[in-house]
Amino acid sequence: MESTRRGILKSSAIGAGALLASSAALAKPEAARAAPTTIDPVVPFYGAHQAGIATPAQEYLQIGAFNVVGDSIADLRKLMKTWTEAAAAMSLGHQVGALRTGSRPPVDTGEALGLGPAQLTVTFGFGASLFTAGGKDRFGLARHRPAPLVDLPVFHGDDLQPDICDGDIGIQVCANDPQVAFHAMHDLIKLGNAIAAPKWLLSGFGRTGNSTVQALPRNLMGFQDGTANIVVENAAALDAFVWAAEPASPAWMRGGSYMVARRIQIALSLWDQTNLNGQQEAIGREKVSGNLLPVVPPTSHIMLASPGKNSNQRLYRRGFSYVDGVVAGAAAPETGLMFICYNKDPREQFIPIQLRIAGKDALSTYLTHIGSSVFACPPGVKSGGYIGEQLLSSA
Amino acid sequence: MESTRRGILKSSAIGAGALLASSAALAKPEAARAAPTTIDPVVPFYGAHQAGIATPAQEYLQIGAFNVVGDSIADLRKLMKTWTEAAAAMSLGHQVGALRTGSRPPVDTGEALGLGPAQLTVTFGFGASLFTAGGKDRFGLARHRPAPLVDLPVFHGDDLQPDICDGDIGIQVCANDPQVAFHAMHDLIKLGNAIAAPKWLLSGFGRTGNSTVQALPRNLMGFQDGTANIVVENAAALDAFVWAAEPASPAWMRGGSYMVARRIQIALSLWDQTNLNGQQEAIGREKVSGNLLPVVPPTSHIMLASPGKNSNQRLYRRGFSYVDGVVAGAAAPETGLMFICYNKDPREQFIPIQLRIAGKDALSTYLTHIGSSVFACPPGVKSGGYIGEQLLSSA
Repeated sequence: MESTRRGILKSSAIGAGALLASSAALAKPEAARAAPTTIDPVVPFYGAHQAGIATPAQEYLQIGAFNVVGDSIADLRKLMKTWTEAAAAMSLGHQVGALRTGSRPPVDTGEALGLGPAQLTVTFGFGASLFTAGGKDRFGLARHRPAPLVDLPVFHGDDLQPDICDGDIGIQVCANDPQVAFHAMHDLIKLGNAIAAPKWLLSGFGRTGNSTVQALPRNLMGFQDGTANIVVENAAALDAFVWAAEPASPAWMRGGSYMVARRIQIALSLWDQTNLNGQQEAIGREKVSGNLLPVVPPTSHIMLASPGKNSNQRLYRRGFSYVDGVVAGAAAPETGLMFICYNKDPREQFIPIQLRIAGKDALSTYLTHIGSSVFACPPGVKSGGYIGEQLLSSA
Repeated sequence: MESTRRGILKSSAIGAGALLASSAALAKPEAARAAPTTIDPVVPFYGAHQAGIATPAQEYLQIGAFNVVGDSIADLRKLMKTWTEAAAAMSLGHQVGALRTGSRPPVDTGEALGLGPAQLTVTFGFGASLFTAGGKDRFGLARHRPAPLVDLPVFHGDDLQPDICDGDIGIQVCANDPQVAFHAMHDLIKLGNAIAAPKWLLSGFGRTGNSTVQALPRNLMGFQDGTANIVVENAAALDAFVWAAEPASPAWMRGGSYMVARRIQIALSLWDQTNLNGQQEAIGREKVSGNLLPVVPPTSHIMLASPGKNSNQRLYRRGFSYVDGVVAGAAAPETGLMFICYNKDPREQFIPIQLRIAGKDALSTYLTHIGSSVFACPPGVKSGGYIGEQLLSSA
């Protein structure tokens, strides 16, 4: 809305300027990767799918979940309209509203003034508790809950902390500038005020998602991550494994996807005490080169997570490393992977794959899942519409 | 040590790739600022002063404090030798040691393989508890404790959490790549294992420190930060306000500096509800332009922090924004500024200035200091020496 953030400054004449190493195939990368080329700083917000899913992964993450305070469907619609408009504006590098508003507070909080769009994406999803909480149909949405939006089973290795799990609405913000990413989450918090309050938030950096034009990153265990991940250019794989479709999903989810977000703490000091062979055999790849081991051990992570062991199912991962102080009482860093994957149907993908590997692959020794959330992310919208409109207008 | 991280990959034939808006002057910036120019990716580790103090501020921070486990001066010397060598190697983009070590774990943890030096700096400092703890002269260093390394008084607005305060040894890691910064802290933790354990750690981004060649950044309140800060090119100001000297400091601190690190939580939702005039009057500047207000209010932050109100004392600030989940029970982001400043003598600079502004400037309403540390950062060393050698060899 209004002028761009850079424009504002100009007119004021200011010069300021997986871990899951591979949850997919025991295969070669899908395509040869080239050096990054010049990229458009704007990722279009409007479209058939929400931005931030089949988008080459950016460098920074802000992710969180919000609880809706009341039980008014009108408020919920208003919230999603406001958030949609703000996300669309920020994706273009615009402010979400004026700073000079007379006696009222600035609408935009201002810390991204002078910064570009930085490939910002904002992706919204609805948690199970938005449909039913404590047996109550809060917003008249219970009958529209998608069958794939199931409660996850308890997995081996789970040590979930309820205050960093779930929530009514999940938001994934990604950008190539950490200040642009935080500004977006900050302004969504501010705009949601009185209707939705943040339950948990986490910052991330690095990435596991990728594209044919992106170099492979390394996770905090020092291994390349994403070697056999689905790349965003593979439309057939996205149709097969990412985009929700009927009949498994309801019509309002067609072209959407189910985000599973797992905060996976790595016992980094234990890992650091493991010798190179032990590390490589846990993953199934060479550490430096990323190549498959000559003999991939049967209990290695990539073997147990491979499509051949999982009814040819694949996961499209888009996670980020996180660092969050020290583990209370442990004198060790609280760090790991914010594992994020998008599923066509978690009942066929994340859940059976995680049941197969948790506590069984050699990597499990080093991992504790401390956060867990699943969100049904609706499809994208055209300008004038709002995310979730088809669902919320049917209540 | 050994080849560069990029070299390792090449040889393997892998293609992978303030808040305190101004604690200083009511003045114009010290020099006109130009657009960033091409920068050398290496900041020299060895020299008269430690790197990371008079270094143009990088984009990312990892900061933390370690407690020394035992009371062996020999172990302490060994630790500082090991850390010095590792910091020097990583500053060049080298590994800290081999990955292939037979049956022993890799020395380097590997997540920075393929990444450049990214202007990494590692800055070490000694806390008061290294000299005396519980009345005990742990390492025979008590008589060498510098007079400027005082315990801070309790300031108005302090709500300090002991587990994120102080520590025997503080380490500030900065780099222009968050993975390079984390890798450095990670490997220092690994190398320090059995001698020193991390007490607290924090990640940051953005910056308040600056140089004539850097554009001014904005803090998370949306205001430009660092307008009147000392720039690193101002050698006279660094001599006057940053570098320790006799007689106030002992000879082993000559050319060093005292780091004061304060974790300042911002009540962002309260700030976000304040109108533009109120925000501008709290700071003393216009939000968009960064210009001084036509009339700078007497209780504004920049007025009370100005040298004219503080015996012409100045602070050299080098802080970073942080974001750390939600405040327990508050449904609001736990975010703010990791305020870091380097003092020639905190008794003349940080302490009297903070006593003057805390609870008195209009910004105080929004701020809570939850972490606090002071470290005596020794001077730099030549290749072959180690940080703190003059102190530790005198015990």
